[in-house]
Amino acid sequence: MSMNTFGHLFRVTTWGESHGPALGATVDGCPPGVEIDEATLQHWLDRRKPGQNKFTTQRREPDEVRILSGLFEGRTTGTPVQLMIENTDQRSKDYGDIAEKFRPGHADITYWQKYGIRDYRGGGRSSARETAARVAAGGLARAALATLAPQIEITGYMVQVGPHGIDRSAMDMTEIENNPFWCPDAKAAEGWADYLDGLRKAGDSVGAVIEVIARGVPSGLGAPIYGKLDTDLAAAAMSINAVKAVEIGEGMASAALRGSENADEIAMGPDGPVYSSNHAGGILGGISTGQDIVLRFAVKPTSSILTERRTITKSGEDTTIITKGRHDPCVGIRAVPVGEAMVACVLLDHLLLHRGQVGENQGQIG
Amino acid sequence: MSMNTFGHLFRVTTWGESHGPALGATVDGCPPGVEIDEATLQHWLDRRKPGQNKFTTQRREPDEVRILSGLFEGRTTGTPVQLMIENTDQRSKDYGDIAEKFRPGHADITYWQKYGIRDYRGGGRSSARETAARVAAGGLARAALATLAPQIEITGYMVQVGPHGIDRSAMDMTEIENNPFWCPDAKAAEGWADYLDGLRKAGDSVGAVIEVIARGVPSGLGAPIYGKLDTDLAAAAMSINAVKAVEIGEGMASAALRGSENADEIAMGPDGPVYSSNHAGGILGGISTGQDIVLRFAVKPTSSILTERRTITKSGEDTTIITKGRHDPCVGIRAVPVGEAMVACVLLDHLLLHRGQVGENQGQIG
Amino acid sequence: MSMNTFGHLFRVTTWGESHGPALGATVDGCPPGVEIDEATLQHWLDRRKPGQNKFTTQRREPDEVRILSGLFEGRTTGTPVQLMIENTDQRSKDYGDIAEKFRPGHADITYWQKYGIRDYRGGGRSSARETAARVAAGGLARAALATLAPQIEITGYMVQVGPHGIDRSAMDMTEIENNPFWCPDAKAAEGWADYLDGLRKAGDSVGAVIEVIARGVPSGLGAPIYGKLDTDLAAAAMSINAVKAVEIGEGMASAALRGSENADEIAMGPDGPVYSSNHAGGILGGISTGQDIVLRFAVKPTSSILTERRTITKSGEDTTIITKGRHDPCVGIRAVPVGEAMVACVLLDHLLLHRGQVGENQGQIG
Amino acid sequence: MSMNTFGHLFRVTTWGESHGPALGATVDGCPPGVEIDEATLQHWLDRRKPGQNKFTTQRREPDEVRILSGLFEGRTTGTPVQLMIENTDQRSKDYGDIAEKFRPGHADITYWQKYGIRDYRGGGRSSARETAARVAAGGLARAALATLAPQIEITGYMVQVGPHGIDRSAMDMTEIENNPFWCPDAKAAEGWADYLDGLRKAGDSVGAVIEVIARGVPSGLGAPIYGKLDTDLAAAAMSINAVKAVEIGEGMASAALRGSENADEIAMGPDGPVYSSNHAGGILGGISTGQDIVLRFAVKPTSSILTERRTITKSGEDTTIITKGRHDPCVGIRAVPVGEAMVACVLLDHLLLHRGQVGENQGQIG
Repeated sequence: MSMNTFGHLFRVTTWGESHGPALGATVDGCPPGVEIDEATLQHWLDRRKPGQNKFTTQRREPDEVRILSGLFEGRTTGTPVQLMIENTDQRSKDYGDIAEKFRPGHADITYWQKYGIRDYRGGGRSSARETAARVAAGGLARAALATLAPQIEITGYMVQVGPHGIDRSAMDMTEIENNPFWCPDAKAAEGWADYLDGLRKAGDSVGAVIEVIARGVPSGLGAPIYGKLDTDLAAAAMSINAVKAVEIGEGMASAALRGSENADEIAMGPDGPVYSSNHAGGILGGISTGQDIVLRFAVKPTSSILTERRTITKSGEDTTIITKGRHDPCVGIRAVPVGEAMVACVLLDHLLLHRGQVGENQGQIG
Repeated sequence: MSMNTFGHLFRVTTWGESHGPALGATVDGCPPGVEIDEATLQHWLDRRKPGQNKFTTQRREPDEVRILSGLFEGRTTGTPVQLMIENTDQRSKDYGDIAEKFRPGHADITYWQKYGIRDYRGGGRSSARETAARVAAGGLARAALATLAPQIEITGYMVQVGPHGIDRSAMDMTEIENNPFWCPDAKAAEGWADYLDGLRKAGDSVGAVIEVIARGVPSGLGAPIYGKLDTDLAAAAMSINAVKAVEIGEGMASAALRGSENADEIAMGPDGPVYSSNHAGGILGGISTGQDIVLRFAVKPTSSILTERRTITKSGEDTTIITKGRHDPCVGIRAVPVGEAMVACVLLDHLLLHRGQVGENQGQIG
Repeated sequence: MSMNTFGHLFRVTTWGESHGPALGATVDGCPPGVEIDEATLQHWLDRRKPGQNKFTTQRREPDEVRILSGLFEGRTTGTPVQLMIENTDQRSKDYGDIAEKFRPGHADITYWQKYGIRDYRGGGRSSARETAARVAAGGLARAALATLAPQIEITGYMVQVGPHGIDRSAMDMTEIENNPFWCPDAKAAEGWADYLDGLRKAGDSVGAVIEVIARGVPSGLGAPIYGKLDTDLAAAAMSINAVKAVEIGEGMASAALRGSENADEIAMGPDGPVYSSNHAGGILGGISTGQDIVLRFAVKPTSSILTERRTITKSGEDTTIITKGRHDPCVGIRAVPVGEAMVACVLLDHLLLHRGQVGENQGQIG
Repeated sequence: MSMNTFGHLFRVTTWGESHGPALGATVDGCPPGVEIDEATLQHWLDRRKPGQNKFTTQRREPDEVRILSGLFEGRTTGTPVQLMIENTDQRSKDYGDIAEKFRPGHADITYWQKYGIRDYRGGGRSSARETAARVAAGGLARAALATLAPQIEITGYMVQVGPHGIDRSAMDMTEIENNPFWCPDAKAAEGWADYLDGLRKAGDSVGAVIEVIARGVPSGLGAPIYGKLDTDLAAAAMSINAVKAVEIGEGMASAALRGSENADEIAMGPDGPVYSSNHAGGILGGISTGQDIVLRFAVKPTSSILTERRTITKSGEDTTIITKGRHDPCVGIRAVPVGEAMVACVLLDHLLLHRGQVGENQGQIG
């Protein structure tokens, strides 16, 4: 991954600022012949759109995506696909007073220190709006996956809001689309609604943990050592703004497990190897096993809250700042479709990479 | 990062199998004029060497590193530096019975499925011995950092073995070199010794959590969006074998924090911005703030334990396996110098990348 | 260089088809703080625009470039700059009859064989219109160069049309802007006008040789071995469609020179080394010497001519084809600004790469 | 391509200086299961070895290649292959007097200016000995090609020495191995022998032109726009030291051709498209057509000749220099196996890249 592009063969470069004319994604390396259209991509973007429910920011962006290249008669040509989303609801005046101040917990100060210039409107390039471009690219990746590996299913959901986790024994994937939190535990979702209502009124915010499962991934994907599948998934997740941790399988809990508990034993099934458990999260030695790939990441609470914070100005004076305007009690919610999009991009990339470096799976068992 | 190379400008490609003739690292992009010699690199390798204490594997490798290129009169030339470590103590016969079986929890099965061929001796390329090459490269990175940014200090240590964490209020960095665990809490180290003794006798193993702190890192390092400093650190850590999770700053705990708790407030000090806290772990928006960079990663327990496990053979038959020979109750211990080495490589890389893309820090405050 | 992106730090990805909605360039890695606006880029594009004179194709494209990101208050932010040019004059009906046929000498057949799908309108992605995007990116590179290395001057011109070369003893750079051929030899330009008039009436075409000189380039640029400055210049030139050869300095003529003739001797001048000649074309061992960098490339004649050619259809039947519509007697003319743009991009890239890998020039002489 | 690595999927990083302990190539991305051994690679190196005939330098290097990794039971594992060649005949004392002086026409001065340090012994990293590593890597590429695309044949030969070209109507490929020049025109070879004898006695040198033909290359290879097959071939050839020009097909002569002459017409044959000619050199739009790929490059004369030249010292004083010791009347001769090796590497790389991005050829004709 380098600067603004990620991926080895399926390469996505996102561009655009929160308050610039537009933002988008240049997708290079999409296999040819994939059927895609703007409506399909729009579907994925709409799941992410702000204003969708009262728990996410009230910015009303139509987020209409256009496909400017790489398409002919409804199918990809193998040439770069340019996806563009024009910015319309920018409300510049909401941000005008932070031209001189650095919002604590945001990238304002570091962008200034690094570049000596920063587009302060809405967080500029560091804004979460950049993730709209990723979701669009993810929609294209999903379309390609549907052609190359239709058995793959990618599902993201929230497992924790603030200190409140779900009850894993009560997980029901069909609940995910039934509440504003992509939560597979209906009861937890109700609790979260009350909790976040309270936070929003208090002008505060909280973090979250998102989990993404990929089913039906063939074994053999991943390019050790530094192009390992888990390495690329971790990097993809960590690159989402506000993410502070990434886990695969048992994650941090692996540390406390014993070897006798942790190793997933193997038996032979009718269609191939069958594992007794999945502590590994579907990846061994950086390569997929064929089991469910389990990725988790933690999003920190937004620092844009309605309480006064101490900070400094560009000229080095102590001051305070209150974020007015839009306020998100839990930015993590919107990260669910983004996490899914990243996983789609990484999996497609690795399907192509494996096919390129090795060809079809080489090693037969049985 | 791609396949076997990581880094943007300071690029390290590791090569070599556990039981091949040699292993090493090709380091491309080291700045010219850096003073380095084999003895200095050897120092870093010796910290990692197996057999160093009774808690790590008893394989007696001298791990002697040679510098085969890129050096002239004791200084780097700017051309690729080839670091080679010859394998001497391979004890092939210890591994012979796993030619046909896949060890659960290891990469045996996935390497077979991906490549259709695998060097089963000692784990081949997936072996932890690959990390010796990284430590050598890290030694070169440290030497370059000493020239370019001598104020940077990188320190790694263990914060948890199995379920037993350190007492952070009792942390004393000078203790790190005083026990076999790189533990900054002397009391915890004693407890760990007993705990691991018990595990070793039981033929079992456990995981660990390693933390690495980098002090004195200038602000402005990191190349958003996909070359973010935390993205590259996460990828570097996740690429170490057996790592299952990565955290920056508060990590997973960020999820439960409120925005009012989490944001690090800023005041102006005599030498620049001063932060009231460091929940961010030294990175905002993917760019360093100048605060301590705090990275943590979890290592799973090794699956090479002395109890019988169920598995299958290459020909698809159910069988069992016991790992004989070397047994490590906690492979995480050896990951401490590896974590430090990775951080050194990533920081040097980003110093060069920032210098290239932007020049010296642009944005003055005050 | 990879697929649709070239450059190491200053990375340009072009996208777009001749008859798609738009085309453009995603420029990543432009240093921050560079002043640029649409009018400045437009200037460079206008030099390339079809319809500018009767010797280039009569397609009337306004070629208006928009800057969609990476800019704030008139200066680059260091984030990706998206340059977009909308296609307006596409005259699809001119191309409709080649949906089934492959034009000889064009990429029609190879795009079909590779991708199994091709946008046949106007050559799709293989069209020369892609070079408009490069010229736009080159305009941005020039702006950055003006900030970083204002003494650099890049000038392109034609030295040969068909079999007719210029008289190098009669070269006058001020003549370049005075004729439709960017020709520094006024007399040769007149001859070319008659020659091409005849060709156009005959419905035929001819090739050309373009030379680009870069003056004031500091010594030390280039990253041996595979990032050599001449390697990257050669690749940049060869990537322009219809280019079939690249030369540096003496080029092909080097083969016939003796060592005693070819080596450029060195003496010490008041400001540094002074060379007695420049057979090397300003590059030794892949690194700039500080002398003029001399690059030449040959453009083949377009195969879109008004005489019938034998070819086949997609279904494998023998047929013939005549290209109707626009016809260019010498496509090489339009390649002059493209060559300049590529040189600008490569030089900027290498300035940044050198600064990143090495810092300021290390080696003093005297 | 970047710094010291070239290739997209089949990636070769060469390392080592002329007088360092060793040199070699780290080859990453070789497909698994390829049969290779040291003897096979040695065969390719022996074709290049100095001292092989009286027309190439008399340095007696055994050039013994060792395979240090990436191999198991005689087949590649898919992990990095480290090829190492130890330097034995270095005769440091031959070079001692140029520690302070810059040899005109060599990279001495530019390496000093760029890096501020240079290994002056034998040209250090800029030495032609680096090409030994490429030839070794090329041997591995050939082995992989033999598995993936056994119909591909790659043949290099000289077409011009100094001003003396071959008679193309007298070309007989079987003559190539019968003379010291890899010349397919026996009569020309005799003339060259006399000519070079004279040059050697005069202490002078001359350049050469090498042509490489690749037959049996499937259509569809190449990744437009910037990963075009001809772009990568041009870069590969230009990266060989002393190369000053690259041509594909008609090359520079394309400029003088008319469109009516140049386009290769197409007819349908029993096995697919058949072309009436091959002015294109087997590549259209950057993608292979299935015709012979024809690459040519010019090597300048070595500047290491036995006549006194004017130059300067590191401290900026005017001086003169005579190259003593080894003297090559035509370094171009040794570039023939290097050109072949580069073509092998690029073709393999593109086979993998095409397979990765697109899969098998998509577009059927007929």
